[in-house]
Parts: sequence; structure tokens; C-alpha cells
Amino acid sequence: MSQTYSSDKIDEKFMRRAFELAIMALGRTSPNPLVGCVIVHDDQIVGEGYHHKAGTPHAEVHALAAAGDKAHGATAYVTLEPCSHFGRTPPCADALIRAQVHRVIIAMEDPNPLVAGQGINRLREAGIQVEVGLLREEALLMNEVFVKAITTGLPFVVYKSAMTLDGKIATETGDSQWISNEASRSYVHELRDRYDVILVGSETAIHDNPALTCRLPNGKDPIRLIVDGMLRIDEHAQVLNSSKQSPCIIATSRSASEEKLNRFKNLEHVEVWQYDVERYVPLNMLMRDLVHRGWTSVLLEGGGKLAGAFLQEKLIDKVELFIAPKFIGGNGPSPLSGLHIQRMADAIMLHNINVDIRSGDLHVWGYIR
Amino acid sequence: MSQTYSSDKIDEKFMRRAFELAIMALGRTSPNPLVGCVIVHDDQIVGEGYHHKAGTPHAEVHALAAAGDKAHGATAYVTLEPCSHFGRTPPCADALIRAQVHRVIIAMEDPNPLVAGQGINRLREAGIQVEVGLLREEALLMNEVFVKAITTGLPFVVYKSAMTLDGKIATETGDSQWISNEASRSYVHELRDRYDVILVGSETAIHDNPALTCRLPNGKDPIRLIVDGMLRIDEHAQVLNSSKQSPCIIATSRSASEEKLNRFKNLEHVEVWQYDVERYVPLNMLMRDLVHRGWTSVLLEGGGKLAGAFLQEKLIDKVELFIAPKFIGGNGPSPLSGLHIQRMADAIMLHNINVDIRSGDLHVWGYIR
Repeated sequence: MSQTYSSDKIDEKFMRRAFELAIMALGRTSPNPLVGCVIVHDDQIVGEGYHHKAGTPHAEVHALAAAGDKAHGATAYVTLEPCSHFGRTPPCADALIRAQVHRVIIAMEDPNPLVAGQGINRLREAGIQVEVGLLREEALLMNEVFVKAITTGLPFVVYKSAMTLDGKIATETGDSQWISNEASRSYVHELRDRYDVILVGSETAIHDNPALTCRLPNGKDPIRLIVDGMLRIDEHAQVLNSSKQSPCIIATSRSASEEKLNRFKNLEHVEVWQYDVERYVPLNMLMRDLVHRGWTSVLLEGGGKLAGAFLQEKLIDKVELFIAPKFIGGNGPSPLSGLHIQRMADAIMLHNINVDIRSGDLHVWGYIR
Repeated sequence: MSQTYSSDKIDEKFMRRAFELAIMALGRTSPNPLVGCVIVHDDQIVGEGYHHKAGTPHAEVHALAAAGDKAHGATAYVTLEPCSHFGRTPPCADALIRAQVHRVIIAMEDPNPLVAGQGINRLREAGIQVEVGLLREEALLMNEVFVKAITTGLPFVVYKSAMTLDGKIATETGDSQWISNEASRSYVHELRDRYDVILVGSETAIHDNPALTCRLPNGKDPIRLIVDGMLRIDEHAQVLNSSKQSPCIIATSRSASEEKLNRFKNLEHVEVWQYDVERYVPLNMLMRDLVHRGWTSVLLEGGGKLAGAFLQEKLIDKVELFIAPKFIGGNGPSPLSGLHIQRMADAIMLHNINVDIRSGDLHVWGYIR
């Protein structure tokens, strides 16, 4: 189905506009993808739209409604292959056919191998000229969360950590406030707004007693998930009481005390997920369960032991690391203490790394393959 | 003595040329500064020169010799205030006066508070127009080594380390080959070529058994200095036998075995400096002794314990850190394990940080104030 598409500046301009529209809903469409659509007639935009939220109309529907009769004979730019199946909304491919557009330009195919190409075929069978692959790389990057979840059944997991320039996430005495500067900490709230679930281990939940909410104006509190195999967290912990907007989930094991478990089950906005194993929560299974609930992205905020286990189990996709230009020395914890690689040659690589300086802090991000 | 100088594009151009000349001798002039001089008549360069090596003629002498009679009525651009005293060579201020230059533009005053301004006064008293401060910041940076040594009696110390992105300089089992990539490791040889002394602790000398030579074509082997309070190093260690070009110094304490001490004293190209204290070499005193020998810069290459002690004693000026985009986890050593700061708020800051990506590795450098 993959095709090469000889780039055209004008087409590219309109497709970029479709991307701009799509990302307006960043962090709001899960488990659906981000999609933007622009309808162009005689080099003029006659309709625009994007997908706002799962269960609401798709981008094409908004754009076609705005275009009205002007869609007839127009070109539609869509960041993702239009759907061809009835879900909670009717197929967008049919809507484009009914509106009698002349040409459809698509950035990327549907990543779901089971339906990929069906929307494109439907459009072509209706006599519409279809071109696929304009800005495909950008489209894949924009929908990295959706692509991961739909192709693997696992959520897209981002590990965020802050450390000193000598690799410490706390001093020897456990002091960690603050490592990174205000600019970095404010960016973390953008991440919390963007991803579905925020996850920490019980040690972080107990030691730092964080609220794990998003403090941006109009921000969305993520689902809070605490991995706590022994159910050590206190029922008065801030994270259990900090948000009525989104639930807090405790993932635990057979080792949890039954009496404590029952008390937790009575807490409002709190869910307890108990796995039938000793001590340790099975991370891969937990991740799959998140996707089953429709949550496709996870921001893992520590600590180092849990993050090491995630990396060991190949569950981390992306790393966002804030490195403060300061030194504290000693033998305090490092951001991946739970990983135990013996030979330097076996180190896990971070790929496609980027770095910028945020008011003095280094911000490094990249991908685990 | 400090003056503001209203920058002029033409003057700046010639002063930048003087800088270019000066740094041709980078790493070769210790304990003297880097100095460049350009003589300009009717907007044409008529003579250029730079200081090549301590004990040889100064930049002004080379430039005036090249200019000959054309120096008469010319403007001289000098990166540092011309000297006014008889050292191993006669005063440059006098040479400029004799050559009857019309104007002298100086980037920065002599940083030695005892003589600062004397060269400038001498020129002015001879009726020469003198302007001071053009590109002063660049001049201070270029001569950061000289400025540190002349104003404090301590050498300029650069700590170089390589770590993984989770802050480790070795795995839990001690494997450290290789953390950084070839581009980074080749840059380390540029650093070895630039600074007078390369310093490691006994643990690094024993564990890694390095040669600590400079492997650049036309590179200069630095003095190798091993801090080894207990005299644990083996006399067959590579570092003791790797260079006939420059000595290897072992700094030790009263705790060294006398018998072993005597054996070391017979080794060619090896000096033993024994300090009259127990166990630990007094680092501040050791640093002052280097300056007394005319060695004004030190590249500290580890390990983490020794570097922590240096930082604790405020002996480090600059940090050059190579961060490889890889993770190994665990509780392996970090680059400043010998520093023990208890509160995050008391962390030692790195200032004026810069970062670039060298074939994938992050290269971060900055200054300790």
C-alpha cells in the first residue's frame, strides 16, 4: 500500500495546516489518533477540521461540514487514511465520496494492519484520485502513541526523570527538591497534560507524597497509577485524594494485606487492580490492561528501581530527561537503578537524541528501539 | 585601569587576527600567556607575530621584526598588555616605543595585579595613543589558564569525565570500555595536548592501567601525575613507562612504604613527591607545587572519588563531560562519588554551560565559580 509521493510545495503547505489542526487535540483523543483535515478548492481553504475526542466526529466530518458545497471537486488533505468502517461514527471515506471531492492526499496509511488500505481502496473505487505518503515521517511521529498501541496492544511509555549532572536523582540523604529548574518542572506539567496515565512506584508515592496532577490552566489531570505490589501506600496519600477529575489506580499483587485492600476499595475515585502473583506487579500485563481500558500512553515518573524494571522488560519507548547543571556527588540513587547491565557493550541505547537548554537545565530526549 | 572602548569594526577585525595568531601556540606557552600581535599601517597588515613558547621572544617582537620600518606611525593590536619589565626577554613596551608606533590597542590588561597598567603607562608616557578593552571577554577566556595561575598561584584545573546517560562511569562489575564514542575519545587527546599536566588517582591508574599519552600527530604528551597517598601503583604500570617526552610524577604521603619509595626513585622519567602527611596527598599544596614548577594547567581524568575531593576543595575550574546516550543502570560509580553534599540546595553549580552533540554523544562543558 505504501507509495512514494513526489512532494509539491503547495500540497505540503496544506498538509502542514492539517497537522496544525490535528495537534490542537494533543492529549485529548485517546485511544483515537490525532487527525486533521483541510479541504481546498482553487488553492483556497474552504473547510478545516480535526478530531477533538474519542466518540465525537472525525476530522473529515468537521472539514466537510465547513466546506459545504465547495467540497465538490475539491482536494482533501488528511493526516491519516480515512476510516472505512462503522465505529461510533460512520465511515469518513463514504463522507468524502458523497461530498464528491476530486482528490484526497493522505499523510500515512492506517497503522492497524487489519484495516490499512481499505479506506484508500474505497476512495479509489469511487473514482477519487488518492495520493499517500506526503509528510509520512511527521505523521508517524505525531501519532507515535496511537501507532504503538494499535500495532502492539501496549501503551506508548515515556520515562521522565530529572537528575544532576553527576547522575543523581537525590542526595545521599534522600533530598530531591529541587533538582530541575522551574522551566523544566513546568514542562513536566505539559507532559502530564499530554499523556493518559501518570505512573510512579510505591517508593516515590510514599517518599515524595506527590499529587501527580497537572497544574496547567485548562490542563487535564492524567489517570494516576501507583505500582505497589505490597500495598504499602497510605490511604491518606495525596495522590489518592488530589483529583476528582480522574481516578487513581493502585496496581498490587497477591501479597497485599486483605484488610488494607478492603479499606482501599471503599475510597472514592480509587480503583485497586490486584494481580494474582507474589510481590511484584506483572508490568507487561498491567500495560496491556491499560490499553484495554482505552488508555494508550503512560508517563512514567519514577523512581529509578521501577524505571529500570520497565526498561529491562522493553516497555519504555521514549525518555525525557532533565539534567540540572549541578553536582552533589555521593552514592545517592540514579535514574535507572533497577536496571542491572553488566557489560558496557550491552548498554541500552537511546536513539534519535535531541537536546536543548531550558533556562540552564539540559533537556535531553530520545527513543528506545 | 579598566576602560570602555567603543568598538570599531576594522579594529575588531585586526584584533581577531591577533587572537588567531595567539591560539596557534595553544598548550605550548605555559607558564606564559597566549599573546598575538598585529601591526597595521594604512589599513594593511605589515607585521604579525605570536608568542610560541616560554623563554622565546614575545608576540610584539615577532610582529615588529616583520614590520621593520613600516611600524613607524602604525597601529599595534595586542591581545594582552605589553610587558614593562625585564624577564627572560626585554620589555615589549620599550620595543613598541622604539619602533615609533602611533597607537596601541590592547584587549586586556596584565592580570597580574602587581604589574597591571605599567606597560600601558609606559606607552602613554612615550606619547603613544593607547586603548584598552577591545574584545576583553574573549581575551580573558583565551587566557583563562594564565589568569587563574597568575592571580591565585593555583593551576587551572579541568575535570574531564565520560558517563552514561544514567550517570554511570562504569557498570556494577567495573566495565568502562567504552562509554563514549570515538569522536569524544579523540577530543580527549586534544585536551591532553592543550594542558600541561594530566592527573589521575591511584585507583584509575591501577584499574585501567592507562598510558595517558597524547595520541594526536604532533601532539605533546602532558606531564603525568598520579595521586597515590599509599603508593599502591605498580612500578610496571604503563603510565610510568609510556613516555620519554615528559616525566611521570607520583604524589604520595608519609604512608608510602620506604622500600617501594626507593625503588621508584630509581626509575627513569619518574619523580616521587612525598608530602609529610598521613594517607592523603594534600591537594591544594600539590596544585601550588605544580605552579611553582611552571605547570599552570591540569586535566583531571578521574576517578570519581578523587574528582569529588578536588571539587570539595574548590580546585576545579572547568568541567568537560561526555555523556553517551546509553543506559546501564545499577549502582556503579558516578563521576563525582568523592563529593558528599547532603542537601540538594547546596549542590555545586556548573555555570556558562554549553552543549553539543559529537556523533551522538553529548558533550557538555561549563565552569565552577
